[in-house]
This record gives sequence, structure tokens and C-alpha cells, in this order.
Amino acid sequence: MTRADIPAHIRSFVFDIDGCLAVDGEPIAGAFETLAELRDRGYGFVFLTNDSYLSTSAWQKKAVALGFDFPDLAVITAGQILVQLAADRYPGGKVLLFGSDALGREAENLGLKLLTTERGHEADVVLVARTPSFNYDDMTAGLRALRAGAGFITASMARTIPSNDGPVPGTGATTNALAFASRRRAVIAGKPSALAARTCLQIAGFDLKHTAFVGDDPELDIATAKRVQAFSILVLTGSTAAEDVQTLKPQLTPDLVMNSITDIPGLLWA
Amino acid sequence: MTRADIPAHIRSFVFDIDGCLAVDGEPIAGAFETLAELRDRGYGFVFLTNDSYLSTSAWQKKAVALGFDFPDLAVITAGQILVQLAADRYPGGKVLLFGSDALGREAENLGLKLLTTERGHEADVVLVARTPSFNYDDMTAGLRALRAGAGFITASMARTIPSNDGPVPGTGATTNALAFASRRRAVIAGKPSALAARTCLQIAGFDLKHTAFVGDDPELDIATAKRVQAFSILVLTGSTAAEDVQTLKPQLTPDLVMNSITDIPGLLWA
Repeated sequence: MTRADIPAHIRSFVFDIDGCLAVDGEPIAGAFETLAELRDRGYGFVFLTNDSYLSTSAWQKKAVALGFDFPDLAVITAGQILVQLAADRYPGGKVLLFGSDALGREAENLGLKLLTTERGHEADVVLVARTPSFNYDDMTAGLRALRAGAGFITASMARTIPSNDGPVPGTGATTNALAFASRRRAVIAGKPSALAARTCLQIAGFDLKHTAFVGDDPELDIATAKRVQAFSILVLTGSTAAEDVQTLKPQLTPDLVMNSITDIPGLLWA
Repeated sequence: MTRADIPAHIRSFVFDIDGCLAVDGEPIAGAFETLAELRDRGYGFVFLTNDSYLSTSAWQKKAVALGFDFPDLAVITAGQILVQLAADRYPGGKVLLFGSDALGREAENLGLKLLTTERGHEADVVLVARTPSFNYDDMTAGLRALRAGAGFITASMARTIPSNDGPVPGTGATTNALAFASRRRAVIAGKPSALAARTCLQIAGFDLKHTAFVGDDPELDIATAKRVQAFSILVLTGSTAAEDVQTLKPQLTPDLVMNSITDIPGLLWA
């Protein structure tokens, strides 16, 4: 790799968290120093996670606890993108949200009106996020809203998510139950959708042309970048090993592969 | 139509209930007399419903309340087929059942051992039936059992089922959530599977070659018969109108179409 590998027009970074900035709850060695150097040299960055359960402020605290102690650090979540999309498309609208109380408050802060399950059929849009309380009555309410023509947006189509006790059903499983019953297809707010990239950049105030997406998962992080033709960097600190890179499909092949985010400063032009 | 339309080798009938024997909770005019005549002339019959919630004895009471007051009438349900299949394939096995208490008792009567959600990961087979109590913890338990290699059988892949308040999610929606999360595919016990036909005949003690399947729904009743090459009769008292018949695909085209089951006695040979 040469200094030319990260184009000179890149001025900001969107970092995946798990497997990229941190592994198993511990920060990557040198990650804080890398980000501090980027900041000192005038580069912008935000963190982007596909989680849709915790509030963005809870994620900011988590980032600080991981050692990323930057004032005004923006952590953007799939949940935040979900409610932002809903607010953009259905301003002031009535939403049937399957998600955490924290996400419900974020929705209300954007002017959306939360419906109870009982009044779910009145919804302008059905929003699906991580919701361990999801049950059959919720599914029924969602079905009725979708049959009545409500919009349908999900934070993620993840089949499972890891937990300390092993995998648990992901937001995709919940979404799929509703999609199957209603014969409707949900718009995906989180990675790997183009919407995730665009809304993230909108929230961060970054320009697509000048931004690189950095992550460890080709199917999530790289796919997201490729869908909007943004510059993409795959790091090998997470789910992808060096030998996996050769077998990636074109739409998942990053512009650049590096061992770790700590390689970034040495490859920058400015 | 001539008397030759129902072949002479047909000696027994499997009747769908809703749309065939009864519509909107009322028996078809003349239905009881038709069945009584069949019985008097030595023909056998059973009722086959895709419901998996009520016990077979509750269904027998329902049939009597509908006016089908035959002693020893057999009503076979998708739930019964589900637990019968599980008992055949996993004799004495441990089952994680998502279904009603009534169905659980039927499973236990067949020697199966019911697991609690907490011990679901030990299951030999995951069974999915209609279960309005289904929740995220159930989904998690099912996912773990399926990832550990348990069998996977569902009563039905129905997207929705009708209720007095409009459609509610069908067993297919619940099943699909588990299938999506686990990347597993469920065996279907109820209509329109060949298993539904074969297990129904096994329970009824009927011979495939001598049995006609009668129902109003090409995608359920006729498809079931066609999959085992049984004689099939479509009645027009339910979901299918006469003008729909011409547009049916070959695998859904019945051997015989009639206005109502009351046409059957006039078309019999013996």
C-alpha cells in the first residue's frame, strides 16, 4: 500500500464499531490514538452501528467507556436512521413502533406520534426495531396497519444477533413475520441499505464524495458504501480474514483492505 | 355431469369444513342429508381442517353443533397431523411445541414429552401450531433448538387466518420468523402438503386409491389431493367462483367441479 491508497478527496470517515473499533468489548489497540490523530489533522468521523435498541446517548456513553473519549462524538444507530426516515417521509405522522422505549422517545423528539398496539391500525407507518417484548398481539396490530396501507420500515434484516447466551432472533426475524403475513416488503433503514449511508451522512453533515466507510463486514459495511458508490475500507480485525477477501463478489469488494484502522493515518495525503 | 363423474372405485371422502360443509358458521343447505345418505350407502367420510388450535374433540363438538350429528365422526385437524407426524418420526421424543394446551395434551397422549421454553434447546423437534401467546422468548428458544439440529414441523404456512375482527397472523407467519432466523425450512403437516393427505388417510384408515378429497380452496384442498394423486372435487360454495375454475393451474385443477357437496349422491355409482 502507498500513501495514494486513500484518495486525497477523502475528508471524513464513517466507522463501524464492533469488529472495527472494538472487538469483544475491548477497543482495538491504538484505535483511540488513530482517531485522535485524524481529528488533529482535520478529518471528521462518526460511528455507525446497526443496533436499534439503545439510544444514541447510551451509545455515546458506551463509546466513551470503550475509550473513545471525544467530546461531541456522534454515534449514529440504525434505530436513529429508522426514526429519522420516518420523520422525513411522514412528518408528524402516527407510528406503530416495535422497539425500545428509548427509540420511542427519539421518535417523539422528531415530532412523530406513537400509537399503542390497540390503535396500531391507524398508523401511517410501521417501524420495526429490536424489541425483545414482541408478541402475537404486536404482530396482529402490525398486520392490520400494513393491510390498511401503512408504510413499512425496518432497522435491519439481520437474521440473528449475538448475545452472551448465544444468538437471539434479529430484527429481520420480527420483520419477516410481518412481511410474510402481510405480503409487504419493508424498507431497510440500517446497513446494508443505501438509505443507511445517505441518512447517516445527512445526520453527520458529511459529503458522500469526501467520505470513506470503514468496517469489518463486507455484507454490511462494504455493501452499504458500494450502494452509494462511496469509498470503502475493509479492516481485518473482525469477521473477515485476509484469505476471505479474494472470494468476495464485486459488489462486496472494498476499495482498500487494511489490517486495522490504525493503518489509516499512514495512508492519508494531508 | 353424468353418474360416471365420480369413479366407481371411490368409497370414502375427506371433506374440508369451512366453505365446503359450512359457510360463515352455518351448514350448507342439505349437507347433513347428503352425509347421512353417503353413510347409509356405505361410504366413509372424515372432516379435515387446517386448524391447529382446538382439540379434535372440540372440533367434533363443533361439527355436532353445526348439525353434523354423527356418532363416531372423525374430525382430523392439522394440529393432530402435526403431533402424529412428530410421534411417528421422533417416538417418545422431546418436543418444543408452540401451540395450544389442547394440542400439548394430544402430543403427550402420543408419548411425546413437552419441554418448557427454558429447556427448549434440548428439543428433538420444534412444532409450530396456532399460538396466540407466541413471543420473543419463544422465538429465541425455537431458534436455539433449530440451530442445535432439532427437527422442524409446522401445522400450516398460512399467512393469515380470518377472525371476527379481521385477519390475524397465521401459523405461517410464526413459522417464517423461526425459519428466517435459523435458515431452516419447516416440514408442513397440514394442507396443502402430501403429508397432510397421507397422515389424514392413515388416521382415518382410508385407502388413497378409494378416497376423494372435497373442498372449496384449490390451493389447499385440491393441491393436497393432487400431490398424492388422489381424486379431487372442487365445490363452489366457498372461496372459488365458477369463473375462477378456468384459470387454475394444472396442479390446482380438480378432477371434478360441482356446485355443492349435495351434488355428490346423484353422481355415485353404488
